[in-house]
Amino acid sequence: VTATVPEDPAPDAHLAALRGARCVVTGGLGFIGSNLVHALHAAGAHVAVVDALVPRHGGHRRNLEGLPTVEAGATPNGSVGPDDAVELTIAELDDVAAVTPVVDGADVIFNLAGQVSHLDSMTDPVRDLDLNARTHLGFLELVRRTRPEARIVHTSTRQVYGRPRYLPIDEAHPTEPVDVNGIAKLAGEQLHLLYGRVHDLPVCALRLTNVYGPRQRLLGDAQGFLPIFVRRALQGEPITVYGEGEQLRDCLHVDDVVAALVAAAVVPDVVGEICNLGHPEPASLGRIAALVVAAVADAGGPVGAVVSVPWPAERARIDVGSTTCDSSKAKRLLGWEPSIDLATGLHRTVAFYREHGWYLSST
Amino acid sequence: VTATVPEDPAPDAHLAALRGARCVVTGGLGFIGSNLVHALHAAGAHVAVVDALVPRHGGHRRNLEGLPTVEAGATPNGSVGPDDAVELTIAELDDVAAVTPVVDGADVIFNLAGQVSHLDSMTDPVRDLDLNARTHLGFLELVRRTRPEARIVHTSTRQVYGRPRYLPIDEAHPTEPVDVNGIAKLAGEQLHLLYGRVHDLPVCALRLTNVYGPRQRLLGDAQGFLPIFVRRALQGEPITVYGEGEQLRDCLHVDDVVAALVAAAVVPDVVGEICNLGHPEPASLGRIAALVVAAVADAGGPVGAVVSVPWPAERARIDVGSTTCDSSKAKRLLGWEPSIDLATGLHRTVAFYREHGWYLSST
Repeated sequence: VTATVPEDPAPDAHLAALRGARCVVTGGLGFIGSNLVHALHAAGAHVAVVDALVPRHGGHRRNLEGLPTVEAGATPNGSVGPDDAVELTIAELDDVAAVTPVVDGADVIFNLAGQVSHLDSMTDPVRDLDLNARTHLGFLELVRRTRPEARIVHTSTRQVYGRPRYLPIDEAHPTEPVDVNGIAKLAGEQLHLLYGRVHDLPVCALRLTNVYGPRQRLLGDAQGFLPIFVRRALQGEPITVYGEGEQLRDCLHVDDVVAALVAAAVVPDVVGEICNLGHPEPASLGRIAALVVAAVADAGGPVGAVVSVPWPAERARIDVGSTTCDSSKAKRLLGWEPSIDLATGLHRTVAFYREHGWYLSST
Repeated sequence: VTATVPEDPAPDAHLAALRGARCVVTGGLGFIGSNLVHALHAAGAHVAVVDALVPRHGGHRRNLEGLPTVEAGATPNGSVGPDDAVELTIAELDDVAAVTPVVDGADVIFNLAGQVSHLDSMTDPVRDLDLNARTHLGFLELVRRTRPEARIVHTSTRQVYGRPRYLPIDEAHPTEPVDVNGIAKLAGEQLHLLYGRVHDLPVCALRLTNVYGPRQRLLGDAQGFLPIFVRRALQGEPITVYGEGEQLRDCLHVDDVVAALVAAAVVPDVVGEICNLGHPEPASLGRIAALVVAAVADAGGPVGAVVSVPWPAERARIDVGSTTCDSSKAKRLLGWEPSIDLATGLHRTVAFYREHGWYLSST
């Protein structure tokens, strides 16, 4: 028994505004990036993807399954493909030779590339700083020289706040990241805003909470707790929560994130601003796990379990406790608020993965 | 007519505590670093310097003039030299092969290496991020593997605060740097504190205000307004202040900074902490310029002038306005406060450069 995947949500005025626009999506083969590419393509935008396909980071060509694609650089003047083909450039962000022609002529740049694993950031910290800050700085230099008028939307993270001093966290909360990933992402975000102020690039940054949904890498444990929960439930394995599983998280379905990204690319007032993207209804990790198990069972999958284990020391040291984000600034500036509650979002997510089994077997 | 250079200030109990200790000073051929090396050597510490001698950054072998030195790595087991020779390693901070043997066995690491020019950080931003954050991250990894018990004192900057929201700035002030240098220094500082928390390195960070004194690179305009003022006055050229010259700065004589660095290496309570180092008597840029001119004239040098010019656009964009730092935390934790007022410090500074004329001719 497989459920059907709900198709595109209601038409979106912001998305419609990007019809015919040249949109660059860095990290476009990754989780959020590929969902954005699907939405932009469906809306009639010309989409170009830059992705380094860093192993284990979540980027995969199959995330664009169903879309026409063409490799850039296959011929001197760019490759030939269908008019609406998504153009793929496999390169690091700061590869001037490869990326300059992609950025040239762009109307919007969704800069989503990066490394998201907090644990990996502690075992290979220099690589994290490179992927989240250094290559972004090179990219900003390249954009400033090539296409300074392109709107830039940078995806940052609520991890930049560190341990919350108060909840929900608003954008004025101190930024005291507790791992290398948070430090590197903060530097990357600050560099974007700086280039906005100093070099007049129309930049904004969105600080995302935990995101789940289709096209997220399920294997490995590098992408955070949500894909781990989903994978284990789909495989009929118990979901593990640390301690009492009491910490709150305000999880966002990727479709809601895509809507915010698109709004951030077209709404004028957000230029120069940083906005949180969170969900107004946080849930404890234990409850999230139970909802994942229920979604899988409802879809006819295995009936799983949630088990509690003591905190591993290396996780406890970089855990931030409960976090929930105040997204009222995004509502005010972008007219955005999440439309998908957790139970609904998880049902959609489970349906997707039951239709696309390779996420459970491919690395 | 040349004045004499005041010799070492009164003996210092913290400095005495480092007699016989192995002290590594990164950036030890630079301005603050070389003054620290002189003080440590005089106190009987074993001093090892790591310096990349990056052109135009202020590092120069002549800053250690008067001290016995020996190049590390000249022989397979280290070079032979007098027992009290300062050991020199010319290398980037994250050069594992060159720097690991220097750090091995260290009691204290003064991590002063970095790039200080705000203007250079905007013209070669990736280089700034590398020198102030990336190489420091590699260095921290190296230290954590080689010598995790060494005390580490990191020199940060009040530039991490950005435009002041209130004065004087205390350590709880938001960190919103306004140039690449500030972003990179903040990342470097956060990485140090993170390694303290996560890897148990006994780290602290000092956020320095503008520093002046002997052994500062006077040529070029990369090291900030103070050496420019001193150079121009010594050469009989008018000192230029932007706009009305009304912005306040709380300048520190390097001897006061050295005293704080030494205290930060031995006082237990500062581990894991960040402290501002400022001066309680700020002065306007116009007044600072006038005091420099007066110090030079008093020493028998040229009688100069101060002229006001409109703000250059590229400076105005990254200027932070008036800044003064609240150093009460340093007083509480380190027992430190500045002992040198600006007029006295400038007289000492001018006397030094009139005795060491090469600072005005050598690059």
